Amino acid sequence: MLSLSELVRLALQEDVGPGDVTTLATVASDARGRARLYSKQDLVVAGQAAAGEVFRQLDATYTPAVADGAYVASGTDLGHAEGSLAALITAERCALNFLMRLCGIATHVRSCVEGIDGITVLDTRKTTPLHRTLEKHAVRCGGASSHRFGLFDGILIKDNHIVAAGGIATAVARARRHAHALLRVEVEVESLDELREALEAGADVILLDNMDDATLREAVSITAGRARLEASGNMTAERIRRLVGIGVDQVSMGGLIHQARWADVSMRVLER
Amino acid sequence: MLSLSELVRLALQEDVGPGDVTTLATVASDARGRARLYSKQDLVVAGQAAAGEVFRQLDATYTPAVADGAYVASGTDLGHAEGSLAALITAERCALNFLMRLCGIATHVRSCVEGIDGITVLDTRKTTPLHRTLEKHAVRCGGASSHRFGLFDGILIKDNHIVAAGGIATAVARARRHAHALLRVEVEVESLDELREALEAGADVILLDNMDDATLREAVSITAGRARLEASGNMTAERIRRLVGIGVDQVSMGGLIHQARWADVSMRVLER
Amino acid sequence: MLSLSELVRLALQEDVGPGDVTTLATVASDARGRARLYSKQDLVVAGQAAAGEVFRQLDATYTPAVADGAYVASGTDLGHAEGSLAALITAERCALNFLMRLCGIATHVRSCVEGIDGITVLDTRKTTPLHRTLEKHAVRCGGASSHRFGLFDGILIKDNHIVAAGGIATAVARARRHAHALLRVEVEVESLDELREALEAGADVILLDNMDDATLREAVSITAGRARLEASGNMTAERIRRLVGIGVDQVSMGGLIHQARWADVSMRVLER
Amino acid sequence: MLSLSELVRLALQEDVGPGDVTTLATVASDARGRARLYSKQDLVVAGQAAAGEVFRQLDATYTPAVADGAYVASGTDLGHAEGSLAALITAERCALNFLMRLCGIATHVRSCVEGIDGITVLDTRKTTPLHRTLEKHAVRCGGASSHRFGLFDGILIKDNHIVAAGGIATAVARARRHAHALLRVEVEVESLDELREALEAGADVILLDNMDDATLREAVSITAGRARLEASGNMTAERIRRLVGIGVDQVSMGGLIHQARWADVSMRVLER
Amino acid sequence: MLSLSELVRLALQEDVGPGDVTTLATVASDARGRARLYSKQDLVVAGQAAAGEVFRQLDATYTPAVADGAYVASGTDLGHAEGSLAALITAERCALNFLMRLCGIATHVRSCVEGIDGITVLDTRKTTPLHRTLEKHAVRCGGASSHRFGLFDGILIKDNHIVAAGGIATAVARARRHAHALLRVEVEVESLDELREALEAGADVILLDNMDDATLREAVSITAGRARLEASGNMTAERIRRLVGIGVDQVSMGGLIHQARWADVSMRVLER
Amino acid sequence: MLSLSELVRLALQEDVGPGDVTTLATVASDARGRARLYSKQDLVVAGQAAAGEVFRQLDATYTPAVADGAYVASGTDLGHAEGSLAALITAERCALNFLMRLCGIATHVRSCVEGIDGITVLDTRKTTPLHRTLEKHAVRCGGASSHRFGLFDGILIKDNHIVAAGGIATAVARARRHAHALLRVEVEVESLDELREALEAGADVILLDNMDDATLREAVSITAGRARLEASGNMTAERIRRLVGIGVDQVSMGGLIHQARWADVSMRVLER
Repeated sequence: MLSLSELVRLALQEDVGPGDVTTLATVASDARGRARLYSKQDLVVAGQAAAGEVFRQLDATYTPAVADGAYVASGTDLGHAEGSLAALITAERCALNFLMRLCGIATHVRSCVEGIDGITVLDTRKTTPLHRTLEKHAVRCGGASSHRFGLFDGILIKDNHIVAAGGIATAVARARRHAHALLRVEVEVESLDELREALEAGADVILLDNMDDATLREAVSITAGRARLEASGNMTAERIRRLVGIGVDQVSMGGLIHQARWADVSMRVLER
Repeated sequence: MLSLSELVRLALQEDVGPGDVTTLATVASDARGRARLYSKQDLVVAGQAAAGEVFRQLDATYTPAVADGAYVASGTDLGHAEGSLAALITAERCALNFLMRLCGIATHVRSCVEGIDGITVLDTRKTTPLHRTLEKHAVRCGGASSHRFGLFDGILIKDNHIVAAGGIATAVARARRHAHALLRVEVEVESLDELREALEAGADVILLDNMDDATLREAVSITAGRARLEASGNMTAERIRRLVGIGVDQVSMGGLIHQARWADVSMRVLER
Repeated sequence: MLSLSELVRLALQEDVGPGDVTTLATVASDARGRARLYSKQDLVVAGQAAAGEVFRQLDATYTPAVADGAYVASGTDLGHAEGSLAALITAERCALNFLMRLCGIATHVRSCVEGIDGITVLDTRKTTPLHRTLEKHAVRCGGASSHRFGLFDGILIKDNHIVAAGGIATAVARARRHAHALLRVEVEVESLDELREALEAGADVILLDNMDDATLREAVSITAGRARLEASGNMTAERIRRLVGIGVDQVSMGGLIHQARWADVSMRVLER
Repeated sequence: MLSLSELVRLALQEDVGPGDVTTLATVASDARGRARLYSKQDLVVAGQAAAGEVFRQLDATYTPAVADGAYVASGTDLGHAEGSLAALITAERCALNFLMRLCGIATHVRSCVEGIDGITVLDTRKTTPLHRTLEKHAVRCGGASSHRFGLFDGILIKDNHIVAAGGIATAVARARRHAHALLRVEVEVESLDELREALEAGADVILLDNMDDATLREAVSITAGRARLEASGNMTAERIRRLVGIGVDQVSMGGLIHQARWADVSMRVLER
Repeated sequence: MLSLSELVRLALQEDVGPGDVTTLATVASDARGRARLYSKQDLVVAGQAAAGEVFRQLDATYTPAVADGAYVASGTDLGHAEGSLAALITAERCALNFLMRLCGIATHVRSCVEGIDGITVLDTRKTTPLHRTLEKHAVRCGGASSHRFGLFDGILIKDNHIVAAGGIATAVARARRHAHALLRVEVEVESLDELREALEAGADVILLDNMDDATLREAVSITAGRARLEASGNMTAERIRRLVGIGVDQVSMGGLIHQARWADVSMRVLER
Repeated sequence: MLSLSELVRLALQEDVGPGDVTTLATVASDARGRARLYSKQDLVVAGQAAAGEVFRQLDATYTPAVADGAYVASGTDLGHAEGSLAALITAERCALNFLMRLCGIATHVRSCVEGIDGITVLDTRKTTPLHRTLEKHAVRCGGASSHRFGLFDGILIKDNHIVAAGGIATAVARARRHAHALLRVEVEVESLDELREALEAGADVILLDNMDDATLREAVSITAGRARLEASGNMTAERIRRLVGIGVDQVSMGGLIHQARWADVSMRVLER
């Protein structure tokens, strides 16, 4: 797993390569500068650490003005950078690329979960390769929660695992035997029959895939508290609100991340 | 710069970590499988090489059924994977994360540039860190073109460079002196006065930032072919269509990438 | 996390550096050879993949003669290598260093858990840095099981976490809130009072640290099946046998790995 | 070759992965702490630099209380760490894994060589992959000496080299010609005849493999100071003592490292 | 692309490997020292940053006494290092290897371009692998200029590209279409006919390969300012002087780098 | 230490970066080609493995026509490459940069040592950072021999070590104690008095630094075979010839490498 500093190092390498020719040519190497990063729309802040690391790797400093998770109005200062003027100009795009993406996700998540109470909204593994840690962090900034990180820290038995194992009961039993005792077993089911099999097999969590509200209601009643229930498939903010009353424990929603667009953030060099 | 194989290696490491516990537990290690990746919406294909590399690194094969750049209807096979069943299941999410993002960008780009003729539509450096090569490729799949890759293969003198150099003339002169002769000099201007200065300084390309149609029209007339003109700022598909008649040579539009959402692509294991 | 091939690459680099001067000087570069790796004591086999990778990286082949997990008598062939004679000689020590360590652990584990039934014996995070995947695999080859892999795939609340959180109840509640739902919560307790607190807090697994048999017996009775119980601290093969009757579910034992010595394995070049 | 900082970085990555979920959940991120690392048995200290590096990489400090090589009683403070409480708790296992292994080796070495005078006791290349620098350092802490580091900084002609070269004389001659003049040539022999051949060939050092005391005595007499003599094979502390009188110059003993068990070292968080 | 710090880290690893045995044995680890690096011939300084990084990575400091680009007499101090005496001695060779190479190139370049006015002298891509950034910097220190950095930041259509594309016109057209607008198109021609084709195709820069003075003169006249002209092939300082009058804009010359020998620089430890 | 494949990977990354824009634009991706690499001067071949690896990494093949070490006339084929036409063109410069440098060194070495008999001519540690393995190989191709590789595989006590240790006797004694027994001890001396001290201290090899022929002659007589003698300092081919008669055993000469210029090698694409 890339650490944040490795990720940022590679990002700068990608953008700067053998050198920022424009800045090297036009900006005196001993000029100093200050810059202000600010929102150009209402947004939830996320990604301050990544932005800061970009400036730090170019020997500049970055001081956040608001913390990740804050919801700020358009025109709010997000942070201030200080260092060589050339470094600030070279860093700008890379720092903004992190901030705009992550604020965009956090802001989109907020719009999905705002005012929802009584149900946990989770992200999925549908994340941008190499950005999962950051994106899952942005999801939490926006007010939703994390599902498992990857394939290694949680058991989720899906369709293909069930067919390969020859049935839900065998799949669950194999998972219990193979995995260490601190991992719960979740099973994805597509029908109420499969739900009953999963409950009988002793699944700890059951993912109800693509069921309508009526079926979900029946699933809650069949389960009767014997397992934690997760709904998934084409979730929207409106539908999540409806599900609260039905009694599902949690919903997962890849769109928290993959339907987000970048938020609008700018940097302005203040003085020289 | 990460090669595709390094990028995919890190992506798999991120998702699989010390092991896909579910699959290791439930799928026999000697079972073989085949899988079909297919579109669940109309989309422009992009990212076949990345998807293929994911399977390859898990010792499976991936054979694209359509080439990058093709526009296909919902339900079309994008490719077929073959290998150990466990490998296919472990690879699924990572391969789809690449494909869904890149098809999403290509499809969004198509919706922006479809039917536009007589003006070049360009991406910008607003790209996801570490994914620039892939995202710029997706932009071309969707029918738009590439601006410079990074800070090293093109000169673009912006506001801050001009202030640091003490004026447009000095900035252009310094850039000419510093950079090698195969790089053109582009200058970003915010007014017609600045445009005149840039023309006088001998800029090869001029970026007209955030000007309305009337101003752009005047800019074209002032320039009279002495430089290539690029319009930028809040571009939309509709506005681009209008700009064709005005005579601007090219427009750049970060939103080609940062306003795209993922396309819907699925994988189905066919048989075992 | 290092992959096996990266680990082996670094291991060869460590041993061979800029070149095996003895072999380069004395062995003709076009000579071919075969070699036999064999046990010089009764042992449980572990590490065949690592040994094979060493030969593979020097463009030789390695064919295991017995699988990991087999218990073999002294003098048994473990595998056969074939390739350039120089490669076999250069690879020998590195391949044996992996095999001897891992067979040593597997064999020691077997001596600890042989004939034990009705209780799960687990390893811990007391492993050689960068060798955890291999060592935990060797533990399973020897007949014991794996606890969580690292700090990221299981929750184990210890003494210091409890003090920091201000009590068992708060610590468990925070863990439930912070972690995703597929991770169980284990709490380490040092007294029966703490056990009661942990049960009340809803811990899924409870680690009973350094308790004598009488106290463990009482712990089982207090718990009455409300949580899974793990005993730990100065475990020996004999004591584990006693614990079966007491009703503890699992024991963990760092000594499975850190009290193991290398097993005796040799390589003999067969012919040229 | 991995530097210490790279080794520790990988070790932390292995243990912490995407995050220490327990500590993140239960320990306030602004809490500070101090910790004491101390021996729980009499031991020779080794590994302070590695332990220190673990804390340093988590932005904590570590101040050794005794130097590597010191022999300390059970209950002695080995060092003190200070930093964020969460960092100390996350670092604990990784720091101890280095310390316990290396103190274990140093302590075992001391038990092998204590009181021995008049003969040099050497380690071998039987070391844990990627830990050779640290383990050879621990051997010196325990009072024994280092043989060559790897295949690149010393010539040791063994059985297979001799067969490949077609005899001891040719092998030695080839080694002299190929290697630079600052490397001595050592030859491993299994009989007194081979010893005579090696002496005639002008070997600088001769390794007498698996000979009994009587044969070793005869070897010393045949050699008559013409080469440095090294005994090897099933060495024990008792036997080394006997060899002093026989007149062998040095013994090598893989068991210095591979028969060592971990020493018992603990960390206690002192206050918060 | 390797950063300077990565390049130096690898360089030290290459030279020091598992340890500088001589210095570790003979120099007290707590001794401090100062050292003076000085020229032993008249030379142009280049490489101060690389030399400084070598000392920095061994926790010593290096203060340049003259800047890169200065022309200094034999016996001039280039810089002063200070730190642990052992570090200075270990660093010496590696620091000098960078300095001597780069000063050698800068000094050789000066001898080629001194007193030349009215024509730009350029390096080529004939550089030592992994040292291109440093070598091109040394070229500029010596008074010449940089051609494109690599294959990615400039278009140069050569013989093989022309044949592959089916002619100069197609090749230029394809390059214009494929590349972004900030890259100029240079075409290499071997005859005046090809020159005419290239001009017609609209090449921005034309490389006149291996032409004699008379042909170059004719080329200038044919071109009549329609493209920038570059001469190349067997350039020497004397010939470049002749070309100024002919009216070629620039010459490129691989020998700036590949015909340079190392300059003579020494380090003397001053006191302890 | 970088392996050859890592070195070449980085070299290609340096040259190709995000893509060979000219070749991508002008050469059809499915065109195949063959190419011939040939000498344009008489030269000693060196570097075939590096050239081959460049082509291999671009999925082309390279078949050497002559082996490293061969002395060939101008116009001789060195090898043939085959693969995608685009790959051959992209690989050309990088492959030639390796070959031209290494053939240049080997050819220069030959001119220094040709016809010399009775004295060993050695390289030094004055090598291009990260190219030491290749350059020392080229030295052997040219007919000279290798001194120690780096600071880790040989002991060479110089001026500064002697001052730091407080004299030659102490320095030698410390080196003997610290280093393993397979490393000889070489001492650099600047006067006959120091030579006598070094002999008395038992140095195995003595480096006579910057002595004139008369002094060297006296040194040989004083030494009387008690140590191996190496002359160094401003060596030229002519002087080496003189030294044969004087009785010095070896000379070392940094100029074998740092006074070499690149040899002239070209690649021609044969057909398509």
